[in-house]
Amino acid sequence: MVTRKEVAELAKVSEATVSRVFNGLGPMKPATKERVLEAAKVLGYHPNAIAQSFARRRSGNLGVVLPYMPKVHLFSAYYFAEILSGIGEQVREQGYDMLLSLLAPDDDLDYGRLYRSQKVDACVILGARDTEAQRSSLLQLQEQGLPFCLVNQRFEGLSFLEVDADHVEGSYQAVRHLLDEGYRKIAFLNGSPQYSNSMDRLHGYQKATLEAGLPIDLSLQFEGNYSRTSGYEAAAQIWENRDQVEAIFAANDRMAIGLLQGLRERGWIAGRDFAVIGCDDSDAAKLSDPPLSSIKVPFFEMGKQAARAVLATVGGAGEAQLQVKLPTEVKIRQSSKSGVWRVGS
Amino acid sequence: MVTRKEVAELAKVSEATVSRVFNGLGPMKPATKERVLEAAKVLGYHPNAIAQSFARRRSGNLGVVLPYMPKVHLFSAYYFAEILSGIGEQVREQGYDMLLSLLAPDDDLDYGRLYRSQKVDACVILGARDTEAQRSSLLQLQEQGLPFCLVNQRFEGLSFLEVDADHVEGSYQAVRHLLDEGYRKIAFLNGSPQYSNSMDRLHGYQKATLEAGLPIDLSLQFEGNYSRTSGYEAAAQIWENRDQVEAIFAANDRMAIGLLQGLRERGWIAGRDFAVIGCDDSDAAKLSDPPLSSIKVPFFEMGKQAARAVLATVGGAGEAQLQVKLPTEVKIRQSSKSGVWRVGS
Repeated sequence: MVTRKEVAELAKVSEATVSRVFNGLGPMKPATKERVLEAAKVLGYHPNAIAQSFARRRSGNLGVVLPYMPKVHLFSAYYFAEILSGIGEQVREQGYDMLLSLLAPDDDLDYGRLYRSQKVDACVILGARDTEAQRSSLLQLQEQGLPFCLVNQRFEGLSFLEVDADHVEGSYQAVRHLLDEGYRKIAFLNGSPQYSNSMDRLHGYQKATLEAGLPIDLSLQFEGNYSRTSGYEAAAQIWENRDQVEAIFAANDRMAIGLLQGLRERGWIAGRDFAVIGCDDSDAAKLSDPPLSSIKVPFFEMGKQAARAVLATVGGAGEAQLQVKLPTEVKIRQSSKSGVWRVGS
Repeated sequence: MVTRKEVAELAKVSEATVSRVFNGLGPMKPATKERVLEAAKVLGYHPNAIAQSFARRRSGNLGVVLPYMPKVHLFSAYYFAEILSGIGEQVREQGYDMLLSLLAPDDDLDYGRLYRSQKVDACVILGARDTEAQRSSLLQLQEQGLPFCLVNQRFEGLSFLEVDADHVEGSYQAVRHLLDEGYRKIAFLNGSPQYSNSMDRLHGYQKATLEAGLPIDLSLQFEGNYSRTSGYEAAAQIWENRDQVEAIFAANDRMAIGLLQGLRERGWIAGRDFAVIGCDDSDAAKLSDPPLSSIKVPFFEMGKQAARAVLATVGGAGEAQLQVKLPTEVKIRQSSKSGVWRVGS
């Protein structure tokens, strides 16, 4: 690659002058500027390479912000593990390292710290929730021109660099599948509405329900926190309303598996006495007993695309505001089929 | 905290002199040295705090070196996910961030780069294998006094900071369990001998075998690469020798589950036609069909202890050569019980 020094020598100016020309800084004699531009042209000194070499000192790190909860084995969650694996593959390809920063919900959301201390050149932010503090932190980053990308989260009314999955369509298809199997009383166990992906799933659920001519019954909607335990606990509530429930759509596999376990303890077997479909299509879905139907979400690919998109903005080539939405796909297994076991037994 | 400046003022010397006294640098009048030490004593200026404030500029990052393989979803492997979760909890507690560096097997093992570029203050190295290149890279780090800790790996003849699990004892207990269930023809599916934990498992397997008065039969020993696919492939080899095999000890759960699947396709069901015990006690072991017996290894705790130990050496309080070995525990499930299904059916 042609260096700033070579351009300076050919143009007979200092290296600092070359920098000033390409950064458009300070006063400059037109003749000098022209000489520098001419030398750059002769040598094939490209603006992009310039953008890179003149940028502030690079750390060579892509930051990844993760939500911290004490005692939770964060990396063992399929969701985070897959996104991180995708980010890892992309940073590796581009010669970057990953800087992981664990932030608890009530930590000060000062993302700027990571950039100011030159720990990172850009960030991928995972597990962000729609709160006032989060919005103001992200807006501040955007105003300062610090590059970041959100995964699986949008903020109504704001426009950032975002890589998301089509949860509305995935959820719609999941509920359609339950309807096609003949179920009418379909409960929904969602996660916190502070996640846009929770709201997307609710929309998909409602869309399919209304389309089937069924009423939106709020007593069929439950809320967990995406943990297995919260699914297990929801089983008790659902059991109390068991006359009203034939099938359940759970917003992730962990909650679905907790549900399966909680209802099995009461003698209700998925795929025999009721139907369950989860979301994520994690390894656990395939291994669960009975195997769990689920919505496949391309988390690995989402991580990869988020890393690529945000690193492109560091190089000056990418767009800082862009919404990517990847497709989802329903995977049918035994847990959501009607009468499978009854036929066999 | 008492500052160097306050000590300097009280001792009527320059701040640099205070530094020189506590770092043992350069020539110094005995009287001056005594005055500084006296002032430090009066003010309660502690050597540890000194070590910290005089150290080279800190990055505030703990490096974690991980083995990179294209297309492998590294963070979705229970082994790495749990160790990383433990490291994450510890760094979070100490106000550090984690800098992940992904190294492919044939990459230049220049760990020093991470320290020289001030990306990290210390490193935890995961998935290291016993090769010449690895040994020389680690020895170089040690000679340069750059702090690092190995997890689940030792190097015969070398002494580093290491956090390991007692794989010899765990494997011994696993094979003892199979012997107690009445099995005599016990095969062993191991991973690469470049990992000390593979060799440890071999020792445990041999110890239990010899103790039971059985010969060491090399035709009962198989090698995979810790992937599910390699377990699935080993099933074909084991099937060819099925007259010689009643039970199998697999060196991790992924290979054990591949084995279960490969042998099930041939009509052999674990816990009915043969016994299998794995190692790691991953989530998949609990969810597998039948549930897989396994050796519980405290990976989360190992990650936590490795991070704590190596960060202590940065602060000057820890030992740079220390071998920690955490206990393992055999968890018995259906896959390794003899005649469980036969009794029931």
